[in-house]
Amino acid sequence: MTALQQQGAAAKAASYTLATAGTAKKNAALEAIASILTERQAEWLAANAQDVAAAREAGMRPAMLDRLTLTPERIAGIVDGVRQVIALPDPIGRVDKMETRPNGLIIGRRRVPLGVIAIIFEARPNVTVDAAALCLKSGNVCILRGGREAIRSNRCAAALMREALVSAGLPEDCISLVQDTSHETAHELMHLDGYVDVLIPRGGANLIRTVAKEASVPVIRTGEGVCHIYVDDEADLDMAAKILFNAKCSRPSVCNAVECVLVQKDIAKDFWAKALPLLDEKAVELRADEAALDILGTRARPAAESDWDAEYDDYILAVRTVKDMDEAVSFINVHGTGHSESIITRNYFKAQRFLDAVDAAAVYVNASTRFTDGGEFGLGAEIGISTQKMHARGPMGLVELTSCKYVIYGEGQVR
Amino acid sequence: MTALQQQGAAAKAASYTLATAGTAKKNAALEAIASILTERQAEWLAANAQDVAAAREAGMRPAMLDRLTLTPERIAGIVDGVRQVIALPDPIGRVDKMETRPNGLIIGRRRVPLGVIAIIFEARPNVTVDAAALCLKSGNVCILRGGREAIRSNRCAAALMREALVSAGLPEDCISLVQDTSHETAHELMHLDGYVDVLIPRGGANLIRTVAKEASVPVIRTGEGVCHIYVDDEADLDMAAKILFNAKCSRPSVCNAVECVLVQKDIAKDFWAKALPLLDEKAVELRADEAALDILGTRARPAAESDWDAEYDDYILAVRTVKDMDEAVSFINVHGTGHSESIITRNYFKAQRFLDAVDAAAVYVNASTRFTDGGEFGLGAEIGISTQKMHARGPMGLVELTSCKYVIYGEGQVR
Repeated sequence: MTALQQQGAAAKAASYTLATAGTAKKNAALEAIASILTERQAEWLAANAQDVAAAREAGMRPAMLDRLTLTPERIAGIVDGVRQVIALPDPIGRVDKMETRPNGLIIGRRRVPLGVIAIIFEARPNVTVDAAALCLKSGNVCILRGGREAIRSNRCAAALMREALVSAGLPEDCISLVQDTSHETAHELMHLDGYVDVLIPRGGANLIRTVAKEASVPVIRTGEGVCHIYVDDEADLDMAAKILFNAKCSRPSVCNAVECVLVQKDIAKDFWAKALPLLDEKAVELRADEAALDILGTRARPAAESDWDAEYDDYILAVRTVKDMDEAVSFINVHGTGHSESIITRNYFKAQRFLDAVDAAAVYVNASTRFTDGGEFGLGAEIGISTQKMHARGPMGLVELTSCKYVIYGEGQVR
Repeated sequence: MTALQQQGAAAKAASYTLATAGTAKKNAALEAIASILTERQAEWLAANAQDVAAAREAGMRPAMLDRLTLTPERIAGIVDGVRQVIALPDPIGRVDKMETRPNGLIIGRRRVPLGVIAIIFEARPNVTVDAAALCLKSGNVCILRGGREAIRSNRCAAALMREALVSAGLPEDCISLVQDTSHETAHELMHLDGYVDVLIPRGGANLIRTVAKEASVPVIRTGEGVCHIYVDDEADLDMAAKILFNAKCSRPSVCNAVECVLVQKDIAKDFWAKALPLLDEKAVELRADEAALDILGTRARPAAESDWDAEYDDYILAVRTVKDMDEAVSFINVHGTGHSESIITRNYFKAQRFLDAVDAAAVYVNASTRFTDGGEFGLGAEIGISTQKMHARGPMGLVELTSCKYVIYGEGQVR
């Protein structure tokens, strides 16, 4: 057995204990985690300072350095997140439906944990605790595999959380960290069949595509966001401009930010007159098709073919002119990633048809794509936004981290 | 583009039409399929006769030849199955939950089809129609890839169903058959990312494991059934013997048949006195551990290590003696395939604990494992029995062939 197989076997064994642990015990363990991360934050901050120093020396760019850095305020925020998870209802054990069949068998469908969830993520140390807390509350054991740059921070956080688990009477292997951050261990994790029930990659598009292609364990794809806004000829153009500005500029680095605007040709000139002044505030770079270039002139540059599939995560926007809504829908269904899509229109029938015809996790009428989020959707918290159709679609809260089990009460029935 | 990629692209295009087709139109297409398969059954029977003749010449064994053979009675049964699917409620378009958020956004979660479902199956021509009907009713396009032995039967059935689709005003590509039954096309189908939303293998354990390991498209594992019955020391032994006999002998070739019985040591002798006469009726071969051999003598042969993981699908039963229920549960969680597991006991607390601790799609108290079935569970029909935890677990009916989509009604909201 390799080290990772041993870790997988220990996780699987712990999963049977955690699956039947009960809400009170899981909440006590979460409270112990919140306490230990607060009381012994000096250790965590010291480990993080080493990570940050090493990353700075290695030339990490400032935005990434900032994401890597922990502060007492950020730790307080992370701990607050753990306490919010304590307050969420526990989905485990709920029976969705139960009925007595004609032969007298009583058949119920009970929510159970998925089992062991592996999460591969990049250099954000907060993810370690966020993900572990959501897994624990939903009765799932987690195997965390963070990025190399945050390894000291993650080791410290994982060790503290394991100490908290034991103090609450749960196996420490309910949470574990892959100690070796080489590509080999990531690859091995993707093939840990029999131990890993689900693998969730959290990170850039390359990571997600590689995992989906390579893994033999079941995968949930999350967070690939090439989102569109279609501005219809019957749109309120002021509203359209404000929504586009919000969806592009309120936080361009996230997956629910818009990357491409589709504008109906007849209102394009009027629309840009309203939208440009807003986008100018953030100096948004526009990459436009020919028809839009006629209007935008030197304010835009010509789009390349690759711009129609680009997830910029930056102040850049692809601009395309369409003849009507049907063309917009077809374009979205080919070039979107199935994340979040919005139509801006006053027309009732077009709104309904857009909701029907666009194939995405979240389809909006007259609102910003930025709302696709577990908190905004009322799930309380999320572990990611699924862009696939199997198992879960859209923001994944605690319920999306569960499976079901049929329990059948008999009195000797045979078939 | 290869032939299969073209087929995938055509399926994907058809999926957008079918997703919004409405129940009446889908039912009309199903009725057209039922009619054409009845009226033109002579064509189907003739194609099947060629398959059967070729298979007989190639030396196919009688049980398999029987499964391959169509008769007017069997066609009537298949057509009856299609009409039962018409009668089932359509899950598509149902809104599971809808709420108005504090910011006024109205967010609903609507059931939508998965999109394109590929199904790889072996030499049973009835699967072609069963699977196509369930996919069609749930708004999913299907790509069917049957076994080489049934290719003429399948080509005929697929051509007739496509004719029926067109007559009902739906694209013929809502149902298509992979014409080439080489290993290469099966492999290509497993990697048809972007066109295939879900791949369901239906067949033997080897097929399922290969697909789960190889495929880059999402897979649902179905029908791997190493099922156990645990006979507790507090069991009603008459009931236990009858349930074991039913679970082993009523239809040994199916996945919910029992493969291994775990018997508590103190009651083993009394239990076998009741169970053996029943198992003798079908001359069930017993493969037993040492403790059981002491009781069973020459009636059993010693089990090999591989017997503890074997799916016999035959009149063979592995027999193991255990010290208590905990040992049985641990054994099941290691050697089971997560399909169906049953405890026979009078003890309330053990029954509850078995239901909690066993990790399987269906866990029974005092009943035969043979009930794990879409019809028996009240789902109306099933496309297979999922043994994985992601997406669906246990019998998969129409609802399990759906995904969801968040639809959001706004009035200009930005974040």
